[in-house]
Amino acid sequence: MDIKKKYYPMLKWAKELFPFCRSITGKGLRDTILFLKKINTDLKILSFKSGEKVFDWYIPDEWNIKDSFIKHTSGKKYAQFSKSNLHIMGYSIPIDRWISKNELLKHIHTQKNLPNAVPYVTTFYKKNWGFCLSEDEKKKLPNGKFKVFIDSNLQPGVLNLAEAKLKGRSKKEIFFSTNICHPSMANNELSGPVLASALLKYIKNNYKKTYYSYRFIFVPETIGSIAYLSKKYREMKKRIIAGFVLSCVGDERNYSHIFSPNYNLADKALSSALIGLKNVKKYSYLERGSDERQYCSPGIDLPVCGFCRSKYGEYPEYHTDRDNFNVVTQKGLEDSFNVIKNIINAFEIGLFPKTRTLGEPQLSKRNLYPEISKGGTLDVETKNRIDMLAYSDGKTNIFDICKKINLPLGQALLSVKNLKKFKLLKIKYL
Amino acid sequence: MDIKKKYYPMLKWAKELFPFCRSITGKGLRDTILFLKKINTDLKILSFKSGEKVFDWYIPDEWNIKDSFIKHTSGKKYAQFSKSNLHIMGYSIPIDRWISKNELLKHIHTQKNLPNAVPYVTTFYKKNWGFCLSEDEKKKLPNGKFKVFIDSNLQPGVLNLAEAKLKGRSKKEIFFSTNICHPSMANNELSGPVLASALLKYIKNNYKKTYYSYRFIFVPETIGSIAYLSKKYREMKKRIIAGFVLSCVGDERNYSHIFSPNYNLADKALSSALIGLKNVKKYSYLERGSDERQYCSPGIDLPVCGFCRSKYGEYPEYHTDRDNFNVVTQKGLEDSFNVIKNIINAFEIGLFPKTRTLGEPQLSKRNLYPEISKGGTLDVETKNRIDMLAYSDGKTNIFDICKKINLPLGQALLSVKNLKKFKLLKIKYL
Amino acid sequence: MDIKKKYYPMLKWAKELFPFCRSITGKGLRDTILFLKKINTDLKILSFKSGEKVFDWYIPDEWNIKDSFIKHTSGKKYAQFSKSNLHIMGYSIPIDRWISKNELLKHIHTQKNLPNAVPYVTTFYKKNWGFCLSEDEKKKLPNGKFKVFIDSNLQPGVLNLAEAKLKGRSKKEIFFSTNICHPSMANNELSGPVLASALLKYIKNNYKKTYYSYRFIFVPETIGSIAYLSKKYREMKKRIIAGFVLSCVGDERNYSHIFSPNYNLADKALSSALIGLKNVKKYSYLERGSDERQYCSPGIDLPVCGFCRSKYGEYPEYHTDRDNFNVVTQKGLEDSFNVIKNIINAFEIGLFPKTRTLGEPQLSKRNLYPEISKGGTLDVETKNRIDMLAYSDGKTNIFDICKKINLPLGQALLSVKNLKKFKLLKIKYL
Repeated sequence: MDIKKKYYPMLKWAKELFPFCRSITGKGLRDTILFLKKINTDLKILSFKSGEKVFDWYIPDEWNIKDSFIKHTSGKKYAQFSKSNLHIMGYSIPIDRWISKNELLKHIHTQKNLPNAVPYVTTFYKKNWGFCLSEDEKKKLPNGKFKVFIDSNLQPGVLNLAEAKLKGRSKKEIFFSTNICHPSMANNELSGPVLASALLKYIKNNYKKTYYSYRFIFVPETIGSIAYLSKKYREMKKRIIAGFVLSCVGDERNYSHIFSPNYNLADKALSSALIGLKNVKKYSYLERGSDERQYCSPGIDLPVCGFCRSKYGEYPEYHTDRDNFNVVTQKGLEDSFNVIKNIINAFEIGLFPKTRTLGEPQLSKRNLYPEISKGGTLDVETKNRIDMLAYSDGKTNIFDICKKINLPLGQALLSVKNLKKFKLLKIKYL
Repeated sequence: MDIKKKYYPMLKWAKELFPFCRSITGKGLRDTILFLKKINTDLKILSFKSGEKVFDWYIPDEWNIKDSFIKHTSGKKYAQFSKSNLHIMGYSIPIDRWISKNELLKHIHTQKNLPNAVPYVTTFYKKNWGFCLSEDEKKKLPNGKFKVFIDSNLQPGVLNLAEAKLKGRSKKEIFFSTNICHPSMANNELSGPVLASALLKYIKNNYKKTYYSYRFIFVPETIGSIAYLSKKYREMKKRIIAGFVLSCVGDERNYSHIFSPNYNLADKALSSALIGLKNVKKYSYLERGSDERQYCSPGIDLPVCGFCRSKYGEYPEYHTDRDNFNVVTQKGLEDSFNVIKNIINAFEIGLFPKTRTLGEPQLSKRNLYPEISKGGTLDVETKNRIDMLAYSDGKTNIFDICKKINLPLGQALLSVKNLKKFKLLKIKYL
Repeated sequence: MDIKKKYYPMLKWAKELFPFCRSITGKGLRDTILFLKKINTDLKILSFKSGEKVFDWYIPDEWNIKDSFIKHTSGKKYAQFSKSNLHIMGYSIPIDRWISKNELLKHIHTQKNLPNAVPYVTTFYKKNWGFCLSEDEKKKLPNGKFKVFIDSNLQPGVLNLAEAKLKGRSKKEIFFSTNICHPSMANNELSGPVLASALLKYIKNNYKKTYYSYRFIFVPETIGSIAYLSKKYREMKKRIIAGFVLSCVGDERNYSHIFSPNYNLADKALSSALIGLKNVKKYSYLERGSDERQYCSPGIDLPVCGFCRSKYGEYPEYHTDRDNFNVVTQKGLEDSFNVIKNIINAFEIGLFPKTRTLGEPQLSKRNLYPEISKGGTLDVETKNRIDMLAYSDGKTNIFDICKKINLPLGQALLSVKNLKKFKLLKIKYL
């Protein structure tokens, strides 16, 4: 990781955060924010009161839960909250009652295509209750009566979220958003918050003062981004030049890019950072699913795209208890880190390289070109360098140049640094 | 067909019009217009005198014919006009003479690749005469002398065409053009005039007052559209925002779109209306052949494209007596009707949908979204709805939205109506 | 070759020029220019003094050579300059010394993938010396001592290049550039200079006064074009509307187009001229290699693309003594001539055809359309004519029209001339 090669223990953070019972409101969410604030002390906590109108929505009541289970007349317990917080349908209202098996079954959620997995199910905006079991467990439920017990609490409180702002020389901002509302699942979504935390530390460690300003937010999905936007979207529209929704960024399978509706600077940046990587998948905005839905909505129109490894909804463990640390690894997180790190460094080096000579510069006198000219092809480094020069017209940004010459962004940065050192390039910011 | 589901007897009209001996001028053409005027009494008849200059052309003399045949010395008659008006080459001059078989053969037209079909042949702009036979009949002609008899009449008269204009709230117009110059053939071209007649009735039946104005014209091909344009093109250029040439719209085989030279609003409309249909064929403007040749010519440049089922020149029965009611069906006509009906309704609902909320609206509180959130895909209707909202930026027209989200125009109209009802969308006209 | 069908003995010129020992400076280069000046006496010779700064470069010392060889103690000679001027590495400094075989081998260049070919190697910008042998010869070198003898001379002098300017009615220019710095190789590069010489004669023979002005330059590669640009680029940027680098244009294998970085008028012209030819290859600017590198460099940005038959670097004989008159033929040169001739004639006929009628003109009254209309397709000539009319809007240049209707430029010129004769088209210059 650049010169300092500082190690960011993203996997460790994720493992520590794993047990918290997160939801779109409540103590688990708050504790998660407090944990993240220990990593980056400049995190600022924002609160929205239940019932507050945010755009077309209302902040819901705050949900907290102490315990829940199903108990058969035999005394055997099922779906115990104490064993996994996925066993309770999120936002279930309190209950303590004996019911028939038939009635119970109406409140049991399973995932048939993964019969031994417990699914993640919620009922945020409709008062209801339910339990989540594996299909296998459900089939083994004995006949007879069951006690359903949910010691939850749904009443006016607050919705919390966190932001961190790094002030650069310019008011123009690079934006990152990630979700902190999912209970015990690893890729969706502890990978995003720990990656964002590491990136925040990386910028502070590597740049005394950045050129661009940076805004990171950690929000419950949908309602959190809507609440935040409802307060800040005018400022964000003025300042943000590129933004990225970080979700499911911890596995080692694919690199996924969810395009914005209008191919913008964020899309260009991410596209160039994914050149040369294996298993890159491109998704149209039609396949959006996370908070880009809000950032790119009509009238908001922020230049934001989505970055995932295996995209939400596209990997088998998604939204089940199988989304754990068999899925998310430190290597997966670090490879994601490197993708975004290159983007940040590209913005910081300046977007628009421009040659300082007319015609090709004489590279040989700077020992940047082979002395003896023979027919045949140039070495890769020389070819990258002359291609970078050939397209550095001061009007084409470095991401588009990468696309034109099919050069991974990381390698382009090396060429640019090298050419800058020899005073062959100057680079302008946006 | 929409709320009223009014039935338009297009096939019946076509069958009644079939026997008329139409040409680019003459009684058959006039009678066809009078028939169409009974269906839509607001049709207005225009006349152009023979010899009148229209752009680079002159209105030809009027051609009428009473009878024609070939008679062998044996008394046997061939190519009798009384049996099919395709037997006479259109615009043949009068003749009454005994000639050798060799000389006769120079005036016989057949279609070798369809040996039992009588082709449709004309000589509009060069004085000449001829008969059309099937290749099989031609081969069976006996040796000896033949009488060639044509009781036709080619002298100064008029060229007629018809127009209907429906005045809307806006002066902007949607335009339809179809041909009425073909003798007894069904797809090319009675399908166009009967479809246009039904559409005209549909608009009047379904809209008290339209937003856009509508212009329908029924013209002999080429010379008719040129004559009409020569009088009206300045006004048309000012008003017409989309136009469609309707030709060969009565069979059940393909849906064909002949693109304008510059992909314009008409192309966008037709493209979106063909999404999801089977056997859709797209033709470049290089494969044009009907009056789009005039409407899209340099300096005229109207935003007009062509709509066919099986495109002229592309189906085996084209321009022969086999183009009959084995080819054209009521179902074929109705399926074409539905394509254009959706386009009209899309224009009338307004072209530019725009969300009325910032951020995504909360669909669940309007019972437009599943209450319980589980991983997995949304039902089609919900997905269409949120996609329609996501792209309704007030700047993208509904046809382009359909293309972006690959949604058939008819389904898009349902989503838009639904969202409008819930006050989630407003829609602006062009 | 047009009306006069004048024969240009390009192959003969190339064979006479073949033995000259060309380099980027020196007598061989100067003699080559003097030879070309005999063909076109209006060639003007420019000189740049050694040490003169041209953009980021300095004009190198002038190199001349009288003789060179390697001699074994046995008396046997190798790599004799007197047998082929490719045996000496270009710009080798003088030497006269006995050395070991091991030391000798460090200065021997071969081409392993073509073991019986002598490669072309240079050391323009670093003082060094070397010999070129075939890999087979190198392997047969005996053991023992060798005398290395190079009677060369590297000292301040001049670099020469030549330009020819034909003044047209407009100051706008069409530009051609080719290289004259390669020693005894045929395709790369005597084909370019002899083609350019023939084109220059062609224009003078066929046009009393052209509309556009023409600029031809014959330059040593890289340093020559940079030197020329450093003096003239401001004027060139103002005037040149299309330019072509002619290199490797004498074989009969492919037609190659090296695109400029921004698809410009030159690219459009060459693309249209290659329609319908066999073995056309398109190369991105990433695969550039000749002086388009300078003409298209940032800040220079001339609308120039590259034309080759088999592209440099892409044919096996490239940069070896095998690039001889087995590769280059009179037919190859003439086919290249015809490509560029069509481009010149297209510029001269005027770029923007515009119909003189509204609507389609009545072609039949001018005997340009079949009298009798039957279903079926039009003959090619009529179809080309009506397509040319359909796209002649006065805004689309003839090259783009060719692309749209997939018509070879040569055939388009015939249609345009024909339509102009009938006063159906007028044509505007850029």
